[in-house]
Amino acid sequence: MIYADNAATTRLDNQAYQAMVPFLNDEYGNASSAYSFSRVPRQALRDARAAIAECIGAKDEEVFFTSGGTESNNWALKGVSFARKNEKKRIITSAVEHHAILHSCEFLEKIGMEIVYLPVDRTGSVSMDILKRSISDKTALVSLILANNEIGSLQDIAPLARIAHDYGALFHTDAVQAVGHIPVNVCNLGVDLLSASAHKFNGPKGVGFLYIRDGIEIQSYSSGGAQERKLRAGTENIAAIVGMAVALKNNVSMMDENTSHLEKIASIFLRRLASSGIDYLLNGSSKRLPGHISISIKNEDGERLLHRLDLKGVCISTGSACNASENEISHVIKAVAIPASYAKGTIRISFGKENTEQDADKIAEAIISVCRGGKHGSN
Amino acid sequence: MIYADNAATTRLDNQAYQAMVPFLNDEYGNASSAYSFSRVPRQALRDARAAIAECIGAKDEEVFFTSGGTESNNWALKGVSFARKNEKKRIITSAVEHHAILHSCEFLEKIGMEIVYLPVDRTGSVSMDILKRSISDKTALVSLILANNEIGSLQDIAPLARIAHDYGALFHTDAVQAVGHIPVNVCNLGVDLLSASAHKFNGPKGVGFLYIRDGIEIQSYSSGGAQERKLRAGTENIAAIVGMAVALKNNVSMMDENTSHLEKIASIFLRRLASSGIDYLLNGSSKRLPGHISISIKNEDGERLLHRLDLKGVCISTGSACNASENEISHVIKAVAIPASYAKGTIRISFGKENTEQDADKIAEAIISVCRGGKHGSN
Repeated sequence: MIYADNAATTRLDNQAYQAMVPFLNDEYGNASSAYSFSRVPRQALRDARAAIAECIGAKDEEVFFTSGGTESNNWALKGVSFARKNEKKRIITSAVEHHAILHSCEFLEKIGMEIVYLPVDRTGSVSMDILKRSISDKTALVSLILANNEIGSLQDIAPLARIAHDYGALFHTDAVQAVGHIPVNVCNLGVDLLSASAHKFNGPKGVGFLYIRDGIEIQSYSSGGAQERKLRAGTENIAAIVGMAVALKNNVSMMDENTSHLEKIASIFLRRLASSGIDYLLNGSSKRLPGHISISIKNEDGERLLHRLDLKGVCISTGSACNASENEISHVIKAVAIPASYAKGTIRISFGKENTEQDADKIAEAIISVCRGGKHGSN
Repeated sequence: MIYADNAATTRLDNQAYQAMVPFLNDEYGNASSAYSFSRVPRQALRDARAAIAECIGAKDEEVFFTSGGTESNNWALKGVSFARKNEKKRIITSAVEHHAILHSCEFLEKIGMEIVYLPVDRTGSVSMDILKRSISDKTALVSLILANNEIGSLQDIAPLARIAHDYGALFHTDAVQAVGHIPVNVCNLGVDLLSASAHKFNGPKGVGFLYIRDGIEIQSYSSGGAQERKLRAGTENIAAIVGMAVALKNNVSMMDENTSHLEKIASIFLRRLASSGIDYLLNGSSKRLPGHISISIKNEDGERLLHRLDLKGVCISTGSACNASENEISHVIKAVAIPASYAKGTIRISFGKENTEQDADKIAEAIISVCRGGKHGSN
């Protein structure tokens, strides 16, 4: 099998797994308990928070652990809305956000927030001019994605965040696909809130974090116990948190090597595909997640490709894993205006650090073979 | 060390851990992806759901996986409120609920729900008469705890749920301390919603479930992808879900043996304490969680006891782990009207299936020794 769907999920880093094992077994104390048996998990929690903060240029106390990217995104949008909704009712986001953002916005619209969905250019980016035309001092929050999960484009967040701040709006970025894969520094980005998910950077599933800049207005999302400085209730998931921190540290420390490797195998893949004569579009921006490739093949069907590749032992996806059961053109592909004859034939190949040059060749061969097979009526 | 704080968290069942290991490593596929590599995690998800449904007498499709008891409780209260708030604005709960319920109610009050906190008797139970006086056809939800986390009392939920239904209200029970420890059958209880947390029944931390009766009105709480029949977004935490199912099955299949064992060691503990001459009250009801003991010792300080016992290698708690950092008399102890001279000296000993008769003896000895030491001025 060749796994090239690392944007959906990644293999758990072995060191991260090893770091989790003691906390799944002997060190099972509740980190919020007062006796000495809880000292080791409590210290591990502190260390993990510090390690993650360092990876993103934050202060320790600005990192809040969650159950994953979806919770982080929900918290950012709903937490800010509930804190500010009496004065500021507008949320500005874009047409190419993850469903965790878009569906949170739909919820917020029902309870009286006003949502503006900005259009994007063909790379999936929001322009500064368009943002300026929509924003006012009644805007509570601007939320724009850092690295698009479907097309891999990176968005230049810093100038957009500055515009938000000029109008007293907070700025959140969904960095679920970015953290651990490209340099992410909350100060350089100038964001107030940033979402991340461990299993996207070789950490375990079921855990993530939300960066919350010191002093900003946000309500808790999970009401209950006093964990996470009273902002996120629930017994701390120590094993997963520890695993997340180790995975992120490892990915960040190997980022240059991983990036070179991923760019190399991506270019091998693209060169092979380009020489095949297949008619396709390469989606997204040239500034993109390393190893993340989205292509739209003319007169093809992404679902068919996925299943044919699966039979050849190749794992790729059509859009995002979150919508695998829905066989339609994704909102992202629509928003970046892929022509109709190509849109349905969109697939995403997301290489990971474990993929080899041979994998890139084999996947390209497999795609070419399936596309040619299809044309010869062997569907 | 003797660990007797199983109401705070429990040791992970070794079979549950073993079942998790493959899903933390080789079987890392995203359960929502469409290729065959995801078949094993997807089947594991299905099997876990079926196993848990069987343990609580539910249909498979009525079990929804969450990140734990706090999320389950938040979802039940907020999800029903957002679904029904235009017609029914009242939520009825009690003074002895977990903070995940009480603080969710505070949040809901701010957004226009009307919350009624019913008083309880000395055992922590709500009377049918009092519930009848507060309920009307404008009541959206009644939420009452099944097994109290601080004092261990079991509440007779079924007749209270019938009253709720007589008025068209939904009924939720926080069963976080009960599931895996006493027989829990959603049909016998007659509840519409039931919350559970894996790490309270020897499952892993960071995972739980919400039972949602088929066809009731509830909104999703985590907005995003289409997971969990579009009601709870977020990549499925397969390893933890599998571990939870194994732990619950094991606890349920051994429930009679575990209960006998826990009742025996609890009675050893209580006999030893009763013969010591120490002046204390045994809190809660005679219908209680097996092995769960809450006592209030006259003129003592629970914090002091906890720390002295910790020095002797004994882990117990004052109230709930969620509030370990807050040194005050808990809302539960206040609500069940423990006299002031006893209230501050409240401790909770929660035995687990791994505790021995010797543990019970040693803990009783340790408490007696600390109390006598205190009286002789060696504090």
